[in-house]
Amino acid sequence: MTIAHAYAAQSATTPLAPFSFERRTPTARDVAIDILHCGVCHSDLHTARSEWGPAAYPCVPGHEIVGRVSAVGSEVSKFKVGDIVGVGCMVDSCQHCQPCADGLEQYCDNGMTGTYDSQEQVSRANTLGGYSDHIVVFEKFVLHVKHDEKDLAAVAPLLCAGITTYSPLRQWKVGPGHKVGIVGLGGLGHMGVKIAAALGAHVVLFTTSPGKAADALRLGAKEVVVSKDPQAMEAQRNSFDFILNTVAVPHDLDPFLAALKLDGTMTLVGAPGTPHPSPGVFGLILKRRRLAGSMIGGIAETQEMLDFCAEHGIVSDIEPIRMAQINEAYERMLRSDVKYRFVVDMSTVRD
Amino acid sequence: MTIAHAYAAQSATTPLAPFSFERRTPTARDVAIDILHCGVCHSDLHTARSEWGPAAYPCVPGHEIVGRVSAVGSEVSKFKVGDIVGVGCMVDSCQHCQPCADGLEQYCDNGMTGTYDSQEQVSRANTLGGYSDHIVVFEKFVLHVKHDEKDLAAVAPLLCAGITTYSPLRQWKVGPGHKVGIVGLGGLGHMGVKIAAALGAHVVLFTTSPGKAADALRLGAKEVVVSKDPQAMEAQRNSFDFILNTVAVPHDLDPFLAALKLDGTMTLVGAPGTPHPSPGVFGLILKRRRLAGSMIGGIAETQEMLDFCAEHGIVSDIEPIRMAQINEAYERMLRSDVKYRFVVDMSTVRD
Repeated sequence: MTIAHAYAAQSATTPLAPFSFERRTPTARDVAIDILHCGVCHSDLHTARSEWGPAAYPCVPGHEIVGRVSAVGSEVSKFKVGDIVGVGCMVDSCQHCQPCADGLEQYCDNGMTGTYDSQEQVSRANTLGGYSDHIVVFEKFVLHVKHDEKDLAAVAPLLCAGITTYSPLRQWKVGPGHKVGIVGLGGLGHMGVKIAAALGAHVVLFTTSPGKAADALRLGAKEVVVSKDPQAMEAQRNSFDFILNTVAVPHDLDPFLAALKLDGTMTLVGAPGTPHPSPGVFGLILKRRRLAGSMIGGIAETQEMLDFCAEHGIVSDIEPIRMAQINEAYERMLRSDVKYRFVVDMSTVRD
Repeated sequence: MTIAHAYAAQSATTPLAPFSFERRTPTARDVAIDILHCGVCHSDLHTARSEWGPAAYPCVPGHEIVGRVSAVGSEVSKFKVGDIVGVGCMVDSCQHCQPCADGLEQYCDNGMTGTYDSQEQVSRANTLGGYSDHIVVFEKFVLHVKHDEKDLAAVAPLLCAGITTYSPLRQWKVGPGHKVGIVGLGGLGHMGVKIAAALGAHVVLFTTSPGKAADALRLGAKEVVVSKDPQAMEAQRNSFDFILNTVAVPHDLDPFLAALKLDGTMTLVGAPGTPHPSPGVFGLILKRRRLAGSMIGGIAETQEMLDFCAEHGIVSDIEPIRMAQINEAYERMLRSDVKYRFVVDMSTVRD
């Protein structure tokens, strides 16, 4: 075992603070990783504060991890010491069910093992995440990172925000000739704009904030629609092949569903604490539209996403922070005061 | 022009009563049809009573029509005098848009022409439906009926209830090896059970009425689940490939969504006057499920459905009525006191 230096919440109501714990001794199939950068996801905050149900404490969040391999087990074949690697929202799954066999470990019938606030497959020990100086992960859940070393901090958010948007865009076969809407320009939305544009689609950003227009165009959108403006929304009626809705606060889905063409799909990736107002049935029936959901992506698809982003020069727009700034960062994240993702420089964890 | 003898509502609050009007003179492309039978659909009642917005009066409902060709225009090639034919929910569409070109006339970008309470494409005259002794219809919207003559009354509901359930079952590729749920055993649901079973699926009926179990099994279901029973619903979790929800009153969709497998779809074909309680987002996200809608089917698909039903000996379970019984039938339909569709014997329209 090794001692990990980390930041943890000790209860739902206490701020994150320095904390040390023992990481498991790597097994033959494990990769030990020195963490360089860890992105700050809304899920971290929701979990640390038990907003998605009671968390296990101490809670060490963080599932947008980029690091360097420090050791590999005897059966590890895909990685060697010194490799730059990523770890996302999962560190294991049952490996026995059909979704696992299909590379859809995030939908494991027996429950994937989340990178934090989850249970290891055999020991059922609580998992502790990326706000720490190192981590030990089953080889199968470690990803190769091919980006330039100078970009590694900005790569970290790809491990959650990147794959969360990439997977549904791929599943619904977004590409050239498609008109694609991205709802919301936050951590998820700004990745959605970049990836959908790189896939060749005509990207339209829907936002409630007219002030985000310039940024959206810079990131790859061709149009910006202020979704609070009923006339602007009406002008988009029946025109979208696909809409990716990244907004995690309850809002009226009907104007977005109405913007879909016949057989169009809107996929929700934002998870509000209370449901959205109920979508009207006629909006679905009259144009055979679909409302869907999607959660991160499988390991193979996450590797595909990382490779796609490396090839297209895509990283996240980030604001680097020191570990000690994490509580302040949470407050700013709640005010959407971040463009577009905080990333912790993990060399600062013991400062 | 010819005089049609019919039953019409003269306002939202008056019962249907005898009414005569002039049908258009058939054009070169038209088929004139003596109506033998007309099914009674919930839409008829909603429209006659202006429950889906103000109807045009006099209103002659009826869009589940089976009849015999009495005359054909000079350009008509698919039908001849004496043919047994069907007419469903549409009698025309713009014929210029992409959905029309794709055989999806029900989703015509410029609005399909409904069989009643709609506007003809050129004259914009109000359309008057199948509660009448004859009708004149553009050849393209007339269907061949290949069932035995003794079954013609029971064929009529296929033109709406049949295609409304057949189309989504086909679109989502229901077949052998699939576990398929049908929610509700009414006019639509009983057709859904028969057709899904004929397509080779393992059919499960969801109903709030335990008393419908025997009937559901007779119609082709292999299991019946009482949807009011939380334990029974929980036992179905993550097991369905597809669910067709035919219920037109607002109800909690979440237990049905939870019954879907990974990547499963629930299609709504019932259209409640007020929305369902809002479905939870996590139910969609955590298993990448889809909630969709569907409306009748295109003309080519309706012909395919009629041929499929003829081949598999599928008709509706009906209660024949005389035209003068229509108001009583509406009241019984509101109480779900019909197994499973009233069909008017149109020879009684002048009695």
